[in-house]
Amino acid sequence: MNGPPSPNGGPPPAETDLAFARVDLERARRTGIGEVVYGPGKTPAQLAAILTELHAREGFALATRVSPEQAAFVSDQPATADAFYVAAARVLTLGRRAPDPPLPGTVAVVAAGTSDLPVAEEARAVLEALGQGAALIADVGVAGLHRLTARLEEIRAARVVIVVAGMEGALPSVVAGLVERPVIAAPTSVGYGASFEGLAALLGMLNSCGSGVTVVNIDNGFGAAFAAVQINRLSTT
Amino acid sequence: MNGPPSPNGGPPPAETDLAFARVDLERARRTGIGEVVYGPGKTPAQLAAILTELHAREGFALATRVSPEQAAFVSDQPATADAFYVAAARVLTLGRRAPDPPLPGTVAVVAAGTSDLPVAEEARAVLEALGQGAALIADVGVAGLHRLTARLEEIRAARVVIVVAGMEGALPSVVAGLVERPVIAAPTSVGYGASFEGLAALLGMLNSCGSGVTVVNIDNGFGAAFAAVQINRLSTT
Amino acid sequence: MNGPPSPNGGPPPAETDLAFARVDLERARRTGIGEVVYGPGKTPAQLAAILTELHAREGFALATRVSPEQAAFVSDQPATADAFYVAAARVLTLGRRAPDPPLPGTVAVVAAGTSDLPVAEEARAVLEALGQGAALIADVGVAGLHRLTARLEEIRAARVVIVVAGMEGALPSVVAGLVERPVIAAPTSVGYGASFEGLAALLGMLNSCGSGVTVVNIDNGFGAAFAAVQINRLSTT
Amino acid sequence: MNGPPSPNGGPPPAETDLAFARVDLERARRTGIGEVVYGPGKTPAQLAAILTELHAREGFALATRVSPEQAAFVSDQPATADAFYVAAARVLTLGRRAPDPPLPGTVAVVAAGTSDLPVAEEARAVLEALGQGAALIADVGVAGLHRLTARLEEIRAARVVIVVAGMEGALPSVVAGLVERPVIAAPTSVGYGASFEGLAALLGMLNSCGSGVTVVNIDNGFGAAFAAVQINRLSTT
Amino acid sequence: MNGPPSPNGGPPPAETDLAFARVDLERARRTGIGEVVYGPGKTPAQLAAILTELHAREGFALATRVSPEQAAFVSDQPATADAFYVAAARVLTLGRRAPDPPLPGTVAVVAAGTSDLPVAEEARAVLEALGQGAALIADVGVAGLHRLTARLEEIRAARVVIVVAGMEGALPSVVAGLVERPVIAAPTSVGYGASFEGLAALLGMLNSCGSGVTVVNIDNGFGAAFAAVQINRLSTT
Amino acid sequence: MNGPPSPNGGPPPAETDLAFARVDLERARRTGIGEVVYGPGKTPAQLAAILTELHAREGFALATRVSPEQAAFVSDQPATADAFYVAAARVLTLGRRAPDPPLPGTVAVVAAGTSDLPVAEEARAVLEALGQGAALIADVGVAGLHRLTARLEEIRAARVVIVVAGMEGALPSVVAGLVERPVIAAPTSVGYGASFEGLAALLGMLNSCGSGVTVVNIDNGFGAAFAAVQINRLSTT
Amino acid sequence: MNGPPSPNGGPPPAETDLAFARVDLERARRTGIGEVVYGPGKTPAQLAAILTELHAREGFALATRVSPEQAAFVSDQPATADAFYVAAARVLTLGRRAPDPPLPGTVAVVAAGTSDLPVAEEARAVLEALGQGAALIADVGVAGLHRLTARLEEIRAARVVIVVAGMEGALPSVVAGLVERPVIAAPTSVGYGASFEGLAALLGMLNSCGSGVTVVNIDNGFGAAFAAVQINRLSTT
Amino acid sequence: MNGPPSPNGGPPPAETDLAFARVDLERARRTGIGEVVYGPGKTPAQLAAILTELHAREGFALATRVSPEQAAFVSDQPATADAFYVAAARVLTLGRRAPDPPLPGTVAVVAAGTSDLPVAEEARAVLEALGQGAALIADVGVAGLHRLTARLEEIRAARVVIVVAGMEGALPSVVAGLVERPVIAAPTSVGYGASFEGLAALLGMLNSCGSGVTVVNIDNGFGAAFAAVQINRLSTT
Repeated sequence: MNGPPSPNGGPPPAETDLAFARVDLERARRTGIGEVVYGPGKTPAQLAAILTELHAREGFALATRVSPEQAAFVSDQPATADAFYVAAARVLTLGRRAPDPPLPGTVAVVAAGTSDLPVAEEARAVLEALGQGAALIADVGVAGLHRLTARLEEIRAARVVIVVAGMEGALPSVVAGLVERPVIAAPTSVGYGASFEGLAALLGMLNSCGSGVTVVNIDNGFGAAFAAVQINRLSTT
Repeated sequence: MNGPPSPNGGPPPAETDLAFARVDLERARRTGIGEVVYGPGKTPAQLAAILTELHAREGFALATRVSPEQAAFVSDQPATADAFYVAAARVLTLGRRAPDPPLPGTVAVVAAGTSDLPVAEEARAVLEALGQGAALIADVGVAGLHRLTARLEEIRAARVVIVVAGMEGALPSVVAGLVERPVIAAPTSVGYGASFEGLAALLGMLNSCGSGVTVVNIDNGFGAAFAAVQINRLSTT
Repeated sequence: MNGPPSPNGGPPPAETDLAFARVDLERARRTGIGEVVYGPGKTPAQLAAILTELHAREGFALATRVSPEQAAFVSDQPATADAFYVAAARVLTLGRRAPDPPLPGTVAVVAAGTSDLPVAEEARAVLEALGQGAALIADVGVAGLHRLTARLEEIRAARVVIVVAGMEGALPSVVAGLVERPVIAAPTSVGYGASFEGLAALLGMLNSCGSGVTVVNIDNGFGAAFAAVQINRLSTT
Repeated sequence: MNGPPSPNGGPPPAETDLAFARVDLERARRTGIGEVVYGPGKTPAQLAAILTELHAREGFALATRVSPEQAAFVSDQPATADAFYVAAARVLTLGRRAPDPPLPGTVAVVAAGTSDLPVAEEARAVLEALGQGAALIADVGVAGLHRLTARLEEIRAARVVIVVAGMEGALPSVVAGLVERPVIAAPTSVGYGASFEGLAALLGMLNSCGSGVTVVNIDNGFGAAFAAVQINRLSTT
Repeated sequence: MNGPPSPNGGPPPAETDLAFARVDLERARRTGIGEVVYGPGKTPAQLAAILTELHAREGFALATRVSPEQAAFVSDQPATADAFYVAAARVLTLGRRAPDPPLPGTVAVVAAGTSDLPVAEEARAVLEALGQGAALIADVGVAGLHRLTARLEEIRAARVVIVVAGMEGALPSVVAGLVERPVIAAPTSVGYGASFEGLAALLGMLNSCGSGVTVVNIDNGFGAAFAAVQINRLSTT
Repeated sequence: MNGPPSPNGGPPPAETDLAFARVDLERARRTGIGEVVYGPGKTPAQLAAILTELHAREGFALATRVSPEQAAFVSDQPATADAFYVAAARVLTLGRRAPDPPLPGTVAVVAAGTSDLPVAEEARAVLEALGQGAALIADVGVAGLHRLTARLEEIRAARVVIVVAGMEGALPSVVAGLVERPVIAAPTSVGYGASFEGLAALLGMLNSCGSGVTVVNIDNGFGAAFAAVQINRLSTT
Repeated sequence: MNGPPSPNGGPPPAETDLAFARVDLERARRTGIGEVVYGPGKTPAQLAAILTELHAREGFALATRVSPEQAAFVSDQPATADAFYVAAARVLTLGRRAPDPPLPGTVAVVAAGTSDLPVAEEARAVLEALGQGAALIADVGVAGLHRLTARLEEIRAARVVIVVAGMEGALPSVVAGLVERPVIAAPTSVGYGASFEGLAALLGMLNSCGSGVTVVNIDNGFGAAFAAVQINRLSTT
Repeated sequence: MNGPPSPNGGPPPAETDLAFARVDLERARRTGIGEVVYGPGKTPAQLAAILTELHAREGFALATRVSPEQAAFVSDQPATADAFYVAAARVLTLGRRAPDPPLPGTVAVVAAGTSDLPVAEEARAVLEALGQGAALIADVGVAGLHRLTARLEEIRAARVVIVVAGMEGALPSVVAGLVERPVIAAPTSVGYGASFEGLAALLGMLNSCGSGVTVVNIDNGFGAAFAAVQINRLSTT
C-alpha cells in the first residue's frame, strides 16, 4: 500500500504491502510489542519474506507454530543468518529483542503433565524471545500435590505465573490459591473422550474458584506469554 | 398386576400395582437395597401411597427431592407416624434401615463450597437412612488447600469418599491424589456463565487425572450415596 | 475448626469456623487480597455473620452479587455501621481497603453497550473497594467506532484495561489493537438467540486476534477487577 | 426424465436426466442465475458431463470447490476448450456470463487475515464469473484498525460488501458501522481451539451489533457472492 | 461528551451524551438509517429520554422489543405526541421516516406458521417505519405446499423476500428455489424439544441448499427488515 | 456358549459362540428378520466366519458398511459362492431372503442430492436383500420443487417412503405434506461448516412440521430400510 | 383466501382463511388424516374458531397441548357441544373419527416411568381420537426387567409399539429386541443434570442397537401416535 | 529433583526427576496402587526410561495405550526382560503385582458388542496386572437380552461389575437392575452419527435409572479397572 522509504530520510512508512500480507510495522510503537507472525497456512517463501521484512525494519521478528520445513527454508535464506528455531516450541525468531528498560524478574510457566509440554515450551520460547526471563516447572499436576508444593518457592519467586494444563484443567485454581501473583491459565487439548479437545480444561479454568485467574484460548501458549510480558512491562513504565 | 397376597401363607407377591406406579418389592432382595422413590412430579397423595406401601412391606421407605409440602402431607398421614424429613437434604424416610451385618466405618462427604451443601446433605441423609455412618466435611475447596489438608485425617479415616463440587469441579482430582480409598465425584450445578449448569464440573470430573475417580450425574447426591453403600457393603459379604 | 484467639496475645488463628462456612483469614497474607464473599445462596443472617467476622479481623470485607434485601439486612446490624452498598453493581463493602503502598494510576472499565453496564459497574465497584482508581467508559461498541476513538486518550491513560461486552464480543480485539496495556476481556450474557447466554461473546474473546487479551467467565466483572488489581500491584512490589 | 429435444423446434426441455444428477436448466429463467455445481464427491468424469451439458445449453457453467485433479480432467475434454480454473478459489467456469443489462459497480470482498483468503478468493471468482465487478481488500483485521480505515474509501465505493473473517469474526460489525451498503458476513473455519472450526466466528457474526448484517454458512464464499449478485442485480430490474 | 448545540448556527454535534447512553446522531448520515433503540433493560424513563432526543434531532426514532409498559410511558410524555406503538410487533416509533427518493416496491414477509407471527410482525413494522412498503404472507409452511404456491405471485412481486420460520426452518430453501429475488432467512425460537430454542431452524437456514439465502439471528425480525431496506435502497442510489 | 447341535434331532441351538462374537440365530424367529452384521472393526476373516455361520443356518446373511477388501475376502471363500456385494451401498449378502408371504408393493427411497446417494443406495440394497421391492428417486431436493413434483406419482405409488437428505434436511417435511404414507427420514452427513456432520439435518428432521415423520441416525440407510420392512410386513400378518 | 362455498353445489373450497391461520381442509384427502392443531400460542378464541371450522367441515377436529383454560373456553362455545378434553394428555377433540375401514388391532404405548406418563397419555389420547385402539403399559423401565417381561405378551399383541422414556432412553432398544413389530421411540424431557432436557434420551434412541427403531422429537407423543396410525392403516389399503 | 539414594542406607527418595517426567514413587504408599503411565505422546526411549525406573524401585510398572512400536522398543531393552504386552488391550507391564493380602474374587467385565472389546480388554488387562481376577463376558448387548441373562450367573458371581458399551450405552442400566454389586459404567466411542464419538453413551450412563451406577470417561477401560480394584481391596483392609 505504501511506496518505498522516502529517499529524503523521513520516517519509514508504517506498513508495507507484500501483496499477500500487510506487515504492520507501527505496531511495536502502538502496543509495545511488534507483530507476531502465525505460521500455519503460509508457504515457506511467504513466511521468509514476511519475517525478513519485519527483521529488516525492526531488528526482530517472531513466528509461532512454525513447522520444521518452514524453519529450515527460512534459516537457509542468506538474509536470515540470525534465525533461531526452538523445535519443541515450534517458535522461530530472527534477531533478539532487548527491551529497554529490561523486563524484571521471571515469569513461571507451570505445566501439569508431560503431554502439556509443547504448549508450555511455546510460552517459554516466546517469553525468552521477547526478552523476558522464564522458568519452566513441569509435571506438577494436582493428582500429586507434593510435586507442586516442592516447587512452590520457585513459583512464588516469579512475577507472573502461566499455568498450562489439559484434561480437567484444575491446576490454575490450586496455584492461584497459593501465590499472590497474576495467574494466566492456558488450557491444552491434552486428553481424550469427554475432554472434547480441550473444552473440559477451558471450561474448568473459566469457572476457576481461584480469584483473579484469566484464561487464553486452548493450546495458546503464545497468547499467555504475550499477556505475561504486557503485564510485567507495566512495572517499567 | 398381581393379585392380593395369597391366603395360604405363601410368599408375598413381589410387586404391587398402585395403578399409577408399580412398587418393586423384590428389589431389596435382588440388588441389596430397596426401591428409592423420586419425589418430583408426584402428588402428595401419590407419594404417600407409594411410601406407605413400601414401608408396610419392607419396614423402610426412602424418597429424595421431596418438597416441604409433600413431606408435610406424608407426615400427616396416620400410617406414617414414623416419617422423618431432612429439609436441608429434601430426603424423607419412613422407618429405619438396619443392615445386618452392619455397614462398617464411615463414608466421608467432602464438599467444596457452601453452595454445594444441598447436594452434600442429600448424600449424607441417604447414607444415614441406609444405615451407613457418614461424616460431612464442608467448605474445603481447592483455592485454599490448607483447609483441605487440615481435614485430611478425617477424610482418610473414611472407607469411601464422596466429593461434591461445582464450578470447575477440581476437588475430586486433588482428593484422589491424597487418599487411597474409592472416590465418587458428584458434580453440582453451582456456578454461572460458562459453568453451563454443572457441565463444566461434570467434564472436569470425567477427565480427572486422579486415577480411580468415578462420576455420577450433576446434583445427584443420592446416586453417590447409593453407590458408596453398595461399595462398602461388599466388605460384609 | 480453630478455637478462640489465645488469651496470651499470640497470633490470631488463621481461620474461623462459622459452622456453615470457613472464613479464610490468612488469605490476604497469602495472595495479597482478602477473601471475597459470593452473595447468592446465603441467607441475610449468614451473609452478615461472615462479613462481620471478616471485617472484625481484617478491617475490610467485600461481597458480590448481593441482593438489595441482603444488603439492607447487613446494613441494619449494629456492628456494620460502616457498610456501603453500590446497588448498580450489587457490591457490598464493610470498611475500606487502603493498600500500602497505594495502587498507582487507574484501571479503565470499557463497556460496549448500556445493557453491559451491570457487569461493568461490578468491576468498577470492586476496583474502588480494593483501593484502585477506576474510570468507566461506557457505550463505545464497535458498531460506532468514532465513539471509541473519541475516548481513546482516556483509555490509553489507564494502566490496565477491562473490556466488557456481550453479543459478538468484538470490542476487546479492537481495544487491544489500540492500546499497549494489558487487556482483560469480560463477556456478558447480553444478547438473545444465538448469543446462547454469553457463549458467543465468550468464544469471540477467546479467539481474539488481539494479542495479549485474556478472558474471564461470562458476567464476571468481579474476576476481571480482581485480576486487574493483581496485575497493577505488581508495580508496587 | 425428459426425452431428447423435440425435433419440431419447440422449446428445449427444462431438465435433463444424466442418470446420476438432474441438471436444472430452467433455473436461470426462474431465479435469475443458473445452477451452480458443487464439486466434492463427484468423479472428474461426472463433473465434466454435468458442466458440458450445462454449458451446451446455457453457454455458461460454474462449479465450486473443484480440486486441481477435477479441473485438469474437465479442461482436457475436447468440448471444454473454454474452461477457466482459478486455483486459489477452486472455482471452475466454462464460458462467460454477461448479464444484460450489466451489473453496476463493484462488490467489495473484505478479508480479515491472510488465512481467510481462500474463502475470499472463492467469493471474488464467483462474482467475476457471474459478470460482477469485484475488489478484494485483504488483511484488514480489527486488531489493526488503521489498516481498515486506510482502505475505507475503496470499501465505501462498492455497492455491496462481503466481509470474510475467522477467529472471533468481529470485522463485519466494524465494517457495518462504517458503510451504508448491505454487508454480507462470511465466517471462516480459520482458528484453533475454541474457534471450534468456525463456530466462534459464525456466532459472532449472527450476534453482530452492526444493523443489517446477514450471514452465510462457514467457509461459504460462493453463497456470499451469489447473494451479493442477487442484491445488486435488483437495481437493474 | 459534546456540549450543547453551538448558538452560532454551526452544524449540530454528532453525538449527545445522556450519561447512560450515547445517542449516535451521525449514524443516519453514515449508514443511511438512523440508530435503532433496543428496548429491553431500559427503564421507561431512559427509553423516553433517548427516543425524545433522537426524534428532536432526526424527526424520527424507532425502538424494538418495547413492552406495553414502556410504550405507555413514552406515549404519555408531552413531547411524544407523535408516538405510535404496534403491539403485535413490540415496535415503537416517534415520527415518520420518508426516504427521499422513496423506496420502490414492496418487501414480502413470508411466515411459516401462526406462532412465527410475532417475529414477522416485527419485521413488517420496522419495514413500514422505515418507509418501505411491506406485504405479510402468513401460514404457508412447507408441510402444505399448495398454501405457498397459492401465494407465489404475491411473493414474486416483491423486491426482497424475508422468510420467517421456526421448527426445521425449511421454508427459505423452498422459497429461494421459486423466486429470483434476495431471500433473507429469519429463524424463530418456535418449537420444542430438539428445536433447542431456534437452533434447529438456524442451522437449517445456514445450510440451505437454496443459493443466495442469507441469515440473521434467531427471532431477529428487526435485523431482517433493516437488511432488506439496505438492499432495496441500493436501487435508488 | 452352546455345544454342537444335539445328535438326536432336537431343535438347533439358538446361538453359537464364535469366541469373538455371539451369532444370534433365534433372532429371525423373535423379531421377524435375522441378525444383520455391522462390518467396521471386524477382520475379513472374522466377517467371513460370522456370515458363513449365519448363512449355513438361516440360508441368508446380510452385512452393512463392508469395505471392498472385506467383500473380496468373503467372496473368495469356498463356502460363500453365493456372496453378492453392492459396492455403491457397501452391502454384502449371502443367499437371498424370500419372505413368505411376499412383501407387497415397493418402498420409495427419495434422495435430495447426488452426495446423498451412498446412504440411499444402502437403504435400497438392504430393502432388496430383505425381499422388498424398492424404487430410488434421486436428486429431487427442495431448492427445485418441480423436480420433486415431477416424480410425485412414483413416490405416491410406494407403500412406505424413505427420505434421505443432508444439509438442512428439509425434504422429509415437504414429502410428508404430499403423500399419505409413512415417511422415514434419514439425515446424512453431507454438508460443511454449520452442518456439523449431519447435526443440522438431524435436528431439522426431528422438528419436521410434517406430521408422522420418524427419524433414524445420521447416515443410517440400513436402519431406515429395516424399519420400512418391519412396517410393510405388518400388512402380511 | 377462498370465498364461501359456491352456491351451485360445486366442491367446497379446500382451504379457509381465518385471517390468523389457514385451515387446511384438503389435508385429510391428501395425507389420510386431517390437520391437527397445536394449542400453545393461540388465544382460546382463536383455538375455538379454528376447531369449530375444522369440525364443521370434517366432522372432526383435534388439538394437542391444550391448556385447561383453552379447553374450558372451547367447550363452553355453543357450537362445540361435542368437545372432549383428556386433561392428563392435554388433548382436545371435537367429534369422533371413525376410519373406514376400521384400523385393526391395538397400538401399545409403553412408558418407562411414572414421570413419562404425560407424553404417553398424549400418545394414547391421539391414537383413540384417530380411531385406533390403544393399550398403555406403564412403569416398565429397564432397571427392573421383570416388570417389562411380565407385560411382554400384551406388548407383543400390539401391531405397532410406541416406547416412551426419559433419562437414558434405553427402553426402546430392549423392547425392539423382544418384539417383531415396528417400534417408535419417543424420548421425554424427564431427568435432570446431564439429561439436558431430553437430549440424553434422544441421542440414546437415535443410537439404538435395536434394528428398526425410529425416533420422534422430545416429548412428541402426538407425533409418535400419528406415525403409528399411518403405519397401521397401511394394512387397510 | 532429588539426588541419588543416600549411600548411608536411609529411605530412598520419594520421587526421581527424569528431566522430562517426575516419577512418583511414593504414590503406591499413599493411594495403594503405584503410578500408571499413559503411553501416547512419549517416545519409546522416554517410555522405557520411565518404566525401568518405576520397575527398579517398585518391582512393578504398568503403562496403558502403548503402541506396538513402543512395546517392542521397551521389551528389547536389557533391563526389561520381564516385560509383558497385551496387544488387544495395548497394556504393557514390567513385573507382577501380588497384593498382600490378595484381592478376593473376580471383577466381571461385561461388554455390549464386539466393537467395544478393545476397551474391555484394557480393563481386563489392567485388572490382571494389578493382581485382580477378572472375567470377560462379551457380546451381551441389550438388543438380545437372552444373551445377557444366559451369562447372569457369571456376572452375579463377581464382586464388582464393569460394563462397557457404546452407541446408546443402555447396558449398565439393565445390569444394575439385575445384580447387587457395584456397577462401573465405561462408555465407548463405538458408533457413528449422533453417537458423537461416545457422547451419547456417556450421557446415557450418567442418566442411568439403575441406582448406584458410576461412570468413567469415554474409552477409559483403565480407569474403570483401577476403580474396581480400589473398591474390591476395601474388603481386605
